[in-house]
Amino acid sequence: MKKRILWIDPVIDDGVFPALVKDLSREICSPEVEVDVINLKEGPSTLEYFSVEADVIPEVVKLVKDASNAGYDGAVLGCFFDPGLRAAREVSGNMVVTAPAESTMLLASVLGYKFSVLIGRKKWIPRMMENVLVYGLKDRLASFKPMDIGVAQMQEDHGQTRNLMIQAARDAINKDGAEVIILGCTNEYGFYKELQSELRVPVIDPVIAPIKFAEYLIEMKNRFNWHLSRIGDYQGPAL
Amino acid sequence: MKKRILWIDPVIDDGVFPALVKDLSREICSPEVEVDVINLKEGPSTLEYFSVEADVIPEVVKLVKDASNAGYDGAVLGCFFDPGLRAAREVSGNMVVTAPAESTMLLASVLGYKFSVLIGRKKWIPRMMENVLVYGLKDRLASFKPMDIGVAQMQEDHGQTRNLMIQAARDAINKDGAEVIILGCTNEYGFYKELQSELRVPVIDPVIAPIKFAEYLIEMKNRFNWHLSRIGDYQGPAL
Amino acid sequence: MKKRILWIDPVIDDGVFPALVKDLSREICSPEVEVDVINLKEGPSTLEYFSVEADVIPEVVKLVKDASNAGYDGAVLGCFFDPGLRAAREVSGNMVVTAPAESTMLLASVLGYKFSVLIGRKKWIPRMMENVLVYGLKDRLASFKPMDIGVAQMQEDHGQTRNLMIQAARDAINKDGAEVIILGCTNEYGFYKELQSELRVPVIDPVIAPIKFAEYLIEMKNRFNWHLSRIGDYQGPAL
Amino acid sequence: MKKRILWIDPVIDDGVFPALVKDLSREICSPEVEVDVINLKEGPSTLEYFSVEADVIPEVVKLVKDASNAGYDGAVLGCFFDPGLRAAREVSGNMVVTAPAESTMLLASVLGYKFSVLIGRKKWIPRMMENVLVYGLKDRLASFKPMDIGVAQMQEDHGQTRNLMIQAARDAINKDGAEVIILGCTNEYGFYKELQSELRVPVIDPVIAPIKFAEYLIEMKNRFNWHLSRIGDYQGPAL
Amino acid sequence: MKKRILWIDPVIDDGVFPALVKDLSREICSPEVEVDVINLKEGPSTLEYFSVEADVIPEVVKLVKDASNAGYDGAVLGCFFDPGLRAAREVSGNMVVTAPAESTMLLASVLGYKFSVLIGRKKWIPRMMENVLVYGLKDRLASFKPMDIGVAQMQEDHGQTRNLMIQAARDAINKDGAEVIILGCTNEYGFYKELQSELRVPVIDPVIAPIKFAEYLIEMKNRFNWHLSRIGDYQGPAL
Amino acid sequence: MKKRILWIDPVIDDGVFPALVKDLSREICSPEVEVDVINLKEGPSTLEYFSVEADVIPEVVKLVKDASNAGYDGAVLGCFFDPGLRAAREVSGNMVVTAPAESTMLLASVLGYKFSVLIGRKKWIPRMMENVLVYGLKDRLASFKPMDIGVAQMQEDHGQTRNLMIQAARDAINKDGAEVIILGCTNEYGFYKELQSELRVPVIDPVIAPIKFAEYLIEMKNRFNWHLSRIGDYQGPAL
Repeated sequence: MKKRILWIDPVIDDGVFPALVKDLSREICSPEVEVDVINLKEGPSTLEYFSVEADVIPEVVKLVKDASNAGYDGAVLGCFFDPGLRAAREVSGNMVVTAPAESTMLLASVLGYKFSVLIGRKKWIPRMMENVLVYGLKDRLASFKPMDIGVAQMQEDHGQTRNLMIQAARDAINKDGAEVIILGCTNEYGFYKELQSELRVPVIDPVIAPIKFAEYLIEMKNRFNWHLSRIGDYQGPAL
Repeated sequence: MKKRILWIDPVIDDGVFPALVKDLSREICSPEVEVDVINLKEGPSTLEYFSVEADVIPEVVKLVKDASNAGYDGAVLGCFFDPGLRAAREVSGNMVVTAPAESTMLLASVLGYKFSVLIGRKKWIPRMMENVLVYGLKDRLASFKPMDIGVAQMQEDHGQTRNLMIQAARDAINKDGAEVIILGCTNEYGFYKELQSELRVPVIDPVIAPIKFAEYLIEMKNRFNWHLSRIGDYQGPAL
Repeated sequence: MKKRILWIDPVIDDGVFPALVKDLSREICSPEVEVDVINLKEGPSTLEYFSVEADVIPEVVKLVKDASNAGYDGAVLGCFFDPGLRAAREVSGNMVVTAPAESTMLLASVLGYKFSVLIGRKKWIPRMMENVLVYGLKDRLASFKPMDIGVAQMQEDHGQTRNLMIQAARDAINKDGAEVIILGCTNEYGFYKELQSELRVPVIDPVIAPIKFAEYLIEMKNRFNWHLSRIGDYQGPAL
Repeated sequence: MKKRILWIDPVIDDGVFPALVKDLSREICSPEVEVDVINLKEGPSTLEYFSVEADVIPEVVKLVKDASNAGYDGAVLGCFFDPGLRAAREVSGNMVVTAPAESTMLLASVLGYKFSVLIGRKKWIPRMMENVLVYGLKDRLASFKPMDIGVAQMQEDHGQTRNLMIQAARDAINKDGAEVIILGCTNEYGFYKELQSELRVPVIDPVIAPIKFAEYLIEMKNRFNWHLSRIGDYQGPAL
Repeated sequence: MKKRILWIDPVIDDGVFPALVKDLSREICSPEVEVDVINLKEGPSTLEYFSVEADVIPEVVKLVKDASNAGYDGAVLGCFFDPGLRAAREVSGNMVVTAPAESTMLLASVLGYKFSVLIGRKKWIPRMMENVLVYGLKDRLASFKPMDIGVAQMQEDHGQTRNLMIQAARDAINKDGAEVIILGCTNEYGFYKELQSELRVPVIDPVIAPIKFAEYLIEMKNRFNWHLSRIGDYQGPAL
Repeated sequence: MKKRILWIDPVIDDGVFPALVKDLSREICSPEVEVDVINLKEGPSTLEYFSVEADVIPEVVKLVKDASNAGYDGAVLGCFFDPGLRAAREVSGNMVVTAPAESTMLLASVLGYKFSVLIGRKKWIPRMMENVLVYGLKDRLASFKPMDIGVAQMQEDHGQTRNLMIQAARDAINKDGAEVIILGCTNEYGFYKELQSELRVPVIDPVIAPIKFAEYLIEMKNRFNWHLSRIGDYQGPAL
């Protein structure tokens, strides 16, 4: 049976990313899964601040509700801040919702003892630490490693970004005890294979992981009815 | 010199609360402080869900930015979820921003070893625990005590609410080791004095505390330039 | 392409369980997955003690190594103590290894804020807490709820066990704040559907979850080469 | 109405500090607040050891009790070890009691995510960490940064101390993630403005902060009767 | 070779306790150990408050220093608040110093997973929790169980105290998961045998444990020179 | 009365270690204590992996049971992984069981605020951290310091190992805040005296400490019947 997942890109269309996710999904998903991508009509091009993120969350939540009504099986919130994840789950109905930080960190926690997250700016750390605290994984985090570049730059000069990543990852491995590396921004796509081959540790891609985790959670829901508990955290408002 | 604080009520006007805050502020603030109250033009009447809260945060953030531009010295986010506090601080410029959970809990942590928070619904706990984790006060929290009533009901039958509060507070004191009680919803106004006299422990009001904490932070900022650090958590987007 | 998973039952064959797992696997897995079950030739019938568990781990580890050599894609360690999980992963080569506690708890941490685990005896708690500490999920655990029955009894009188489970789960939900229930012994199979329908919260089965998680991790490994990091926790001895 | 605060300097008079606090208080307090300073008649000139601190606490507690009886509204314990703070609060009657570590750290926790404390000697760390643990702020502390100078030296060569401070603070900001700097010894007075202007992050002065926090707590007590809970931590002995 | 231990009773002589400790020590120590008991000449009869405890610590520290100079091998600080333990260790020179809470809790942490402490008043908890936090044993503490009696009463009616203890201990075992019971006040002497025989779990006496732990630490010091590290926590002031 | 302790060396006899422990024990124990050493007949020569450790634990547990039946008073599990400690205690009957990590860390926690452990390989850290978490001492651990040598090498070139140890220890002291050093492998015997004299902080030997701790626990058991609680963690299987 067909399963449909909606990648919600909580920024405006940059002309590249939607097609990229679409193509990638064909490569990584089982044939019965179809991934659509939706962008904001208007809004920011990146979310690097609480206040910018806050601005797009209502639309993200609305898109989740709409997707659920439209019969989607899953939605992915496409930013490593996991913007509005808890809010979205409240209103997701029968649909599962995933996001990059949660899905990469849970996977990393299985693949090794400590993981580090390669990020753009030091500024992001308190926001991301909030998620780590809520997900309960503080003791498994080795470090956040800022590479001191902005989101947009990450895809400008592939070689340069790759070098920054290698350097930050080696530092994480040698000094912070990381055994697994997470790429901590959805705009860090397209690097994990090279890095993995160079570093010889798992390097988790934040675009792939939440799509596959959505597939997994859809399977859990469909087969066993293991879906969000509706008596607490994810109890939603009456309609 | 005049100081102006804006109470941002992140819900629609219920016809009672704005005047109440205004009157209260005249009673509790020093004469040079003036408190204005602003409500949402449209929106929910209570925020008891992540998704409802998320919906109003952009407007809250915008109101904070506007207030800062309009020369306000302080803003208070009027809901115990502290909705958008970190986002608001990013864009607050010279203005201080406070909120009920942070200001009551910091005060409570000084007045005794453990505090409990009287709340309406069990549902609120994961949301509020997120704040406790971020504020770093987990070890000082004795418990959240749900009274099993909604926000609106809290002011319907004063006697009944008072009884629920007494019972929940006694339970917190006797079973959970609470030494200080926090009223965990701005709609729990008007009770602290009676409760305090009955229970003989501090009972902190969530409307008063953030206004007074705003006064305090304004003083810190004006006299010593101790204002939000702009290199991390509260670094804001370029304008 | 065919994928083969080996359920390693770290006890002797009770005449029922192997066929049950085999049948269940046909029902819950995708068609290209085949699950075999292997038991110890000799040994205990249950593992409720550190010392009994320790006794079977070398054989478990050997079976994992053999399965890896025999080309299995995954192995499941079939006991909620996750017996020898880290040891097994050291020698698992290309094969993934899962176990009930890890796979149920990670799933539960996504489906709600707090989970409780229904167990047989209070005695098991320190052993299971060791895993919770290592998996880093202490803050998401609401409670372990002992039902005061042994492993063997669990399948003796279905109605009675069911009642004990309902009672323990309700207690967990009402007093400890659990939103998700985990059945904390592989011998608690066959109950989750009824419980789920009665309790109206997710009730996670410890036989199903690690099989499905193995499928998921096999997919992660095969498609993206995201497999155990071999530089720390899961670095194995030279062969 | 006049409010009187007593700065209790838990060391002997060095001929400089009392006048300095007195002058400073005129500059930083509202006109109705008057700050007196009292020193020990005999005793040590600095408290850098548990055993030296222990020696002066009984006198500190006695001075607190006397001040309360004499009608003071607040007392400040003038050393960053917060010497005897809990003991003093037990016997403070109607008077509020503050101390440098508590008041600076609570303020810092609002102004940014992580704070570092510039101290004299590594030796002080276990003592100060005890306070951090009790105040519950361990997760907000970035680091203690020893500058490797004694208390007395701090005011000997202003330029040299300033340089040590800048260096330690930059290290805290760049390596430990500090967003706010606390000067962790009352003898580090007179530096915060320069440092703040140089570092462009809040630098909190440990003489000013507890005086202002005392003002704040006096206001809380006078207006709302929010004073120390007398049923646990701060329950005092019968008189 | 003779070894001499000084029990420092940080209260005035009640006419019973010194002889009791002396007699007990003959029964429990190896023949070459001699235990002397010293009381305060004046002071309180019990320490149940921070402020009362603070009052006696300088004398305790002085007695420790004197004992060290007089050639004692060990000193025991005879109150479950471990009054002044860190201060005393700073000045203990070649002598070891022990105290009831530390020595009973470390022992308990070896004898079972969780321990509970039977105490007199709820009031004591924040003070004792401070020690638990500093000793790092928070995760091993099941609970403090107040019996709601004062120190003096504990020896008034043996049967009644015994009953209160049994009840509190059973509660700790059944509800809080305690496996080991600690008697949390030196005035709870004379009960451990009966309780142990009744409860069938270890019940640790707070008079015996620190004496024996002192013997152990003396042995460690004499044979291996494993004595207090003098570069941090226990670095003392220059003489 | 004679007391007999069995050192269980969970590896094969290397021709040196058994005699060394035997000789050492004569030097460090009281005359009535006799220490025997037993090795595995076959098995590995070192345990540096979970899977290798797991392999020997059943034999270790069996040796513990046998020793208990043979009337030994204590057993020491001779590897810093504390292999099978909890399993062994379940079946130890009247006999005490100790192990290097537990006994050195508890002692270190008394001798200073933070301790560091000098280990061979980074690989060991997750295994050892598991013990630290279970023993509850995470907040007292400054660091594990890998010296990047294998177990066997440690005794090959004394001077070289000594230099590595000095360097790692100085690093721990200067950068990580360690006040006490633990030698984190039983094959690090023979170094503590030199290191202690060089570093001037306690350096705890992992062969000596568990033997002496066994003596201590035997004393606790014999005199006061303070032995393992048999209602939880150390409740063993019926015989």
